[in-house]
Amino acid sequence: MTDRYAEFRALARSLGVGAVGLVPGPNFERLYHAHFSTSERPTLVVIPETGPPAAIVPNLELGSWAALGFEGEVFDWRDQDGYAEAFAALGRHMPLSSIAVEGQVMRVFVHHALAAACPGIEIRDGETAISGLRMVKTGAEVAALEEAIRISEAALGEVTDAVRLGMTEREIESRLVSALFSHGAEGLAFGPIVAAAENSAKPHASARDYALQSGDALLIDFGARAQGFCADITRTFFVGHASDEARAVYETVRSANQRGHEVARAGITAHEIDDAVQSILEASPYADRIRTKTGHGLGREVHEAPYIMRGNDQTVPAGAVFTNEPGLYDLESFGVRIEDDILVTEDGCRSLTTFPREMRILG
Amino acid sequence: MTDRYAEFRALARSLGVGAVGLVPGPNFERLYHAHFSTSERPTLVVIPETGPPAAIVPNLELGSWAALGFEGEVFDWRDQDGYAEAFAALGRHMPLSSIAVEGQVMRVFVHHALAAACPGIEIRDGETAISGLRMVKTGAEVAALEEAIRISEAALGEVTDAVRLGMTEREIESRLVSALFSHGAEGLAFGPIVAAAENSAKPHASARDYALQSGDALLIDFGARAQGFCADITRTFFVGHASDEARAVYETVRSANQRGHEVARAGITAHEIDDAVQSILEASPYADRIRTKTGHGLGREVHEAPYIMRGNDQTVPAGAVFTNEPGLYDLESFGVRIEDDILVTEDGCRSLTTFPREMRILG
Repeated sequence: MTDRYAEFRALARSLGVGAVGLVPGPNFERLYHAHFSTSERPTLVVIPETGPPAAIVPNLELGSWAALGFEGEVFDWRDQDGYAEAFAALGRHMPLSSIAVEGQVMRVFVHHALAAACPGIEIRDGETAISGLRMVKTGAEVAALEEAIRISEAALGEVTDAVRLGMTEREIESRLVSALFSHGAEGLAFGPIVAAAENSAKPHASARDYALQSGDALLIDFGARAQGFCADITRTFFVGHASDEARAVYETVRSANQRGHEVARAGITAHEIDDAVQSILEASPYADRIRTKTGHGLGREVHEAPYIMRGNDQTVPAGAVFTNEPGLYDLESFGVRIEDDILVTEDGCRSLTTFPREMRILG
Repeated sequence: MTDRYAEFRALARSLGVGAVGLVPGPNFERLYHAHFSTSERPTLVVIPETGPPAAIVPNLELGSWAALGFEGEVFDWRDQDGYAEAFAALGRHMPLSSIAVEGQVMRVFVHHALAAACPGIEIRDGETAISGLRMVKTGAEVAALEEAIRISEAALGEVTDAVRLGMTEREIESRLVSALFSHGAEGLAFGPIVAAAENSAKPHASARDYALQSGDALLIDFGARAQGFCADITRTFFVGHASDEARAVYETVRSANQRGHEVARAGITAHEIDDAVQSILEASPYADRIRTKTGHGLGREVHEAPYIMRGNDQTVPAGAVFTNEPGLYDLESFGVRIEDDILVTEDGCRSLTTFPREMRILG
């Protein structure tokens, strides 16, 4: 019988702590294949180095909890009673002197409840190690990413075919989200960016009532969520026609994106990937339009390890998935970004996104 | 000249701490009218009881930060250097022995960075007091909620007019999100629930490829986000026809919802509202179908104070907005929920949602 906690127990040993604590979020979902919302009510699983786990669960979630096949003691609590006693009972049940938690997921109120229940406990930030367990994707996880990407690319194809001069950013956004859901998205990976003209140069642009004019850039950065996994794709189009400068900028970004596909392989560092990609942009006449790093890991979260940036000497393992998204942005005129989702393999990589990267004139 | 930190300074004094700490999230957005994403990079504002505030800001956010008109010292840091030194510099600049933070918003990695930079600091959970500042809505905030609701109700009207027998939950969901964006939503307040037949009895149902049959319930729970504020509306329809039982259950829920509108007024406790509403359901032949409390506060977050449940003796002030959403759920057959967004006034309340509550047969 396999122990689904084996990697967490090994991690506790390697960190030298007595247990690992998980709260609802990406690591929890990966372990239990179930979604629990992060609400105002604390939920916590404690996985000790040896022996069965224990949990704090809001009473009203016990029905959903039953589906997890949880192996250990559950300390539940009701809104009218508060959760302090449940934490105290867990502390008596499993005396702990140290625990590693997800520092970027667990909130302070859970930290405080744990500290109050286990006087003297050392609560260590184990985020990098715990979330690092998610970096190498399984076959099923890659398949889920591919499904999110399939839905996203189908939606993008439908929408780009419909784009016409005079359509507004907001109309295109509305068509895009509709298409994502109709093709099977369980949700949006993030609020989509549909940005034309100078709006396309802003990294977090919101759709406006601006109507597309001939010569405009149209940047679409979006993704479906499917089976808990996120797609994250950007393509930049031009409407009606593209100026010579637009073509030159576009081809520069496309070359940088292409370079990312070429250098990615198991064992390369995140620094080296970013350096190779950014060098193409830096050697161009548009170096002053560089505003971002190359990309970030992708999976249950839209942003996760590995972060593809200079200064990050982490090596990228086979099975990691990251975004390759170089861009050039001129706040006065337009921005271009081409973003693919790349699966690292032993001898190179495979682009999970396959939507064409050739310059395309819409409308 | 007004001090936009006055209420936080007063709060620090009343809590007996030296400062209040805010991280990006609803309280931060209310203060600065700007959205900063909660990323892997810590951002923190510290507002002392007296004197100018100070902040920790990721270097790459300094451009956006400039728009805040921030009054105090900013300690920025770059990814390649890490943030420990920025926290240490803030600790030297503003020696603190105690601080109240948002326990449900701040994550443990920020807590740890602050504790490391200010040895011996007491980091207290001030969530209830800090977020409590958001409970009474200003006129502008009510107007933003009304805009989110206007968009949502327009979208719901469009979609319900289009519902036909044989349409799937997923098709309806796709039309709904499209309509929300086309009517001006800046995003979804939450992933919508479009659930027919027995799926309508599940509190967090996902849309399926199930095609509507005559006699089905169709529950739609959704909301637009506009100007940073969330709508949260539920209506339950029937398709083709409704059985006598469906009509009886519907009218019971409608009576309970109506009771919520009748009792809400400034000074009533959350317990009393829930008690009045639930009593209607409990007195019906369907008491065994009760599964939820009456509602929750609504504003920049879909779930915030006041929580409308028995045991919560908090009084509800004029200017608070909460959801009134009684429901009856039979997992074997169907669920009915009618959810309005209610603004509490001195002598009663005003329903911000006005979509008809009368039973309606679609298709």
